Amino acid sequence: MEELKVQLVGFGVIGQGFAKVLLRKQNMLTEKYGLKIKVVSISDISGTAIDEKGIDLKKALKVMEEKRAIIHYPNAKEIKAIEAIESLDADVVVEATPSNIKTGEPGLSHMLKAMENGKHVVTSNKGPLALKFKELKETAEKNNVEFRFEASVGGAMPIINLARETLPGDKILAIQGILNGTTNYILTRMTKEEIPLDIVLKEAQEMGIAETDPTYDIEGIDTASKLVILANALLGIDVTYKDVKVEGIRRITPEAIRLAKKDNQVIKLIGEVRNSKIEVAPRLVPENHPLNVDGVLNVAMLECDIAGKITIIGKGAGAIETNSAILSDIINIWRNCR
Amino acid sequence: MEELKVQLVGFGVIGQGFAKVLLRKQNMLTEKYGLKIKVVSISDISGTAIDEKGIDLKKALKVMEEKRAIIHYPNAKEIKAIEAIESLDADVVVEATPSNIKTGEPGLSHMLKAMENGKHVVTSNKGPLALKFKELKETAEKNNVEFRFEASVGGAMPIINLARETLPGDKILAIQGILNGTTNYILTRMTKEEIPLDIVLKEAQEMGIAETDPTYDIEGIDTASKLVILANALLGIDVTYKDVKVEGIRRITPEAIRLAKKDNQVIKLIGEVRNSKIEVAPRLVPENHPLNVDGVLNVAMLECDIAGKITIIGKGAGAIETNSAILSDIINIWRNCR
Repeated sequence: MEELKVQLVGFGVIGQGFAKVLLRKQNMLTEKYGLKIKVVSISDISGTAIDEKGIDLKKALKVMEEKRAIIHYPNAKEIKAIEAIESLDADVVVEATPSNIKTGEPGLSHMLKAMENGKHVVTSNKGPLALKFKELKETAEKNNVEFRFEASVGGAMPIINLARETLPGDKILAIQGILNGTTNYILTRMTKEEIPLDIVLKEAQEMGIAETDPTYDIEGIDTASKLVILANALLGIDVTYKDVKVEGIRRITPEAIRLAKKDNQVIKLIGEVRNSKIEVAPRLVPENHPLNVDGVLNVAMLECDIAGKITIIGKGAGAIETNSAILSDIINIWRNCR
Repeated sequence: MEELKVQLVGFGVIGQGFAKVLLRKQNMLTEKYGLKIKVVSISDISGTAIDEKGIDLKKALKVMEEKRAIIHYPNAKEIKAIEAIESLDADVVVEATPSNIKTGEPGLSHMLKAMENGKHVVTSNKGPLALKFKELKETAEKNNVEFRFEASVGGAMPIINLARETLPGDKILAIQGILNGTTNYILTRMTKEEIPLDIVLKEAQEMGIAETDPTYDIEGIDTASKLVILANALLGIDVTYKDVKVEGIRRITPEAIRLAKKDNQVIKLIGEVRNSKIEVAPRLVPENHPLNVDGVLNVAMLECDIAGKITIIGKGAGAIETNSAILSDIINIWRNCR
């Protein structure tokens, strides 16, 4: 059996989900792959828990439940994530801090520091990638480490690895998709019940599907960030968030939805990249089209030069589901680098 | 640049598609992967074209166009595929002979012979796998070669590699899908136009979508074969074609479809494997469900223990599209075995 030493940076919803999934999956990883994933540090804004023999993940989760800061883990230290990345011995850094689309920080510095220290990076944090994809990719190449970010787009919908691992002979010509579950939920409800956006949004906020400040989702910013990642990673186009033409769903009315319905169409917030054109906007989609998926689902359609159109649908979010992507990236790093 | 020597067995629609795709993709393979795929022999029922420096694929395609048998290729020999597999030097055998669900032959013997001679096997031929999956898998393991068969299920829909390469941390709990494009086309037309099966079937035959003897498709036999492959490959269940409970679409009437529609549902021929139960039957599917795809599309939904439900949609057939899967398998063999 081989051991892979992981540093976990960020211990919120996704980070704690990672701990939970590891607890569920450790036996399977050992049996199926002969792999043991050992978490040697967990950092959050309060400090860093360190144990080179492996953090007790149950205890770490209990600390969070009771005291909401990792600094209360036995012998945790008041050192920042960036120092932990620089000073501790590990193979992989899992970066799961909150996404920041303005500066990319602190995730961007964490990722670059990890790469410069010869550590592979796995992340769910889209901000740094939407702003500095090229720099991150080149830094990874320069330092001969892997950079994987399946969880940054579409949560449990494995669109990036689908293209890379299962369609290696195809050229991806274009991508279209619904990459934001919140707006898809809102549009689905508006379509079914013919009620205005404001009312559905308020309900979605009460249910925890939409955030208190829903701007990122409603204005298409979240979709645009993810589209930038797909454009860079799968089409090899060097774009950043600023290159995307973005229109959100704020102006969609029940009347517009009704008119679409009459024509057997629905209105969806679609991100599309094709021939260096990269755009987010509400679009008409035929009812029987593969992109017409409901609720909080995400969907992406790859247009390939040999395989034709391949569509993948999955949950766009979820603490456990998203960690399927993080775990998959870690296993694939391990498979490639042995 | 590295060279991979391939023997192509079967030179019908899929085999000729393979030659066409290689001609289109050779430059890309060299640039992106440093890989050259050299076809050292092509066998069909008439004999075998051999060239250890690489068959001229354009010439081979022209021979087929003009004389419809590979024996007319310069210096082709009257030796059978099985002898070519045994006697020639190669890394990979691509088995693309017609599928035979009764005996699995001649594909079964070709595959076993290739493995026993230390050659990796890539195939689009589902018959042998639906009958003897376990024997093939064990023979591959015993001889330390790879056995890949993405093209045998769902043509260009990369369901097998999706599970293996992009969801390696997940356990697949169940699979549901539409695995036969012909019946899906027929049911889609019946749903839209409310006309009887016989009329749609006749039209589909005239358009070349359904075969002259449509039994394999209509009776669910083709779907059952593919489901057996998925059950073995992705759920690790040791079943063969005889273990599947199969009901086709022969008894579906416009009236049944009309009743379903009233309830916002459609009738689809669904293959499902779950808890060792493996079944093909017409089922009601809600209109807004991801499994409701139209026309000749194929779809499969994987129920995963971490990622939740992941759905993939793609073309179920096509000479070029299916070769996306064959090429992908070859590239992945090459990536794994260097």
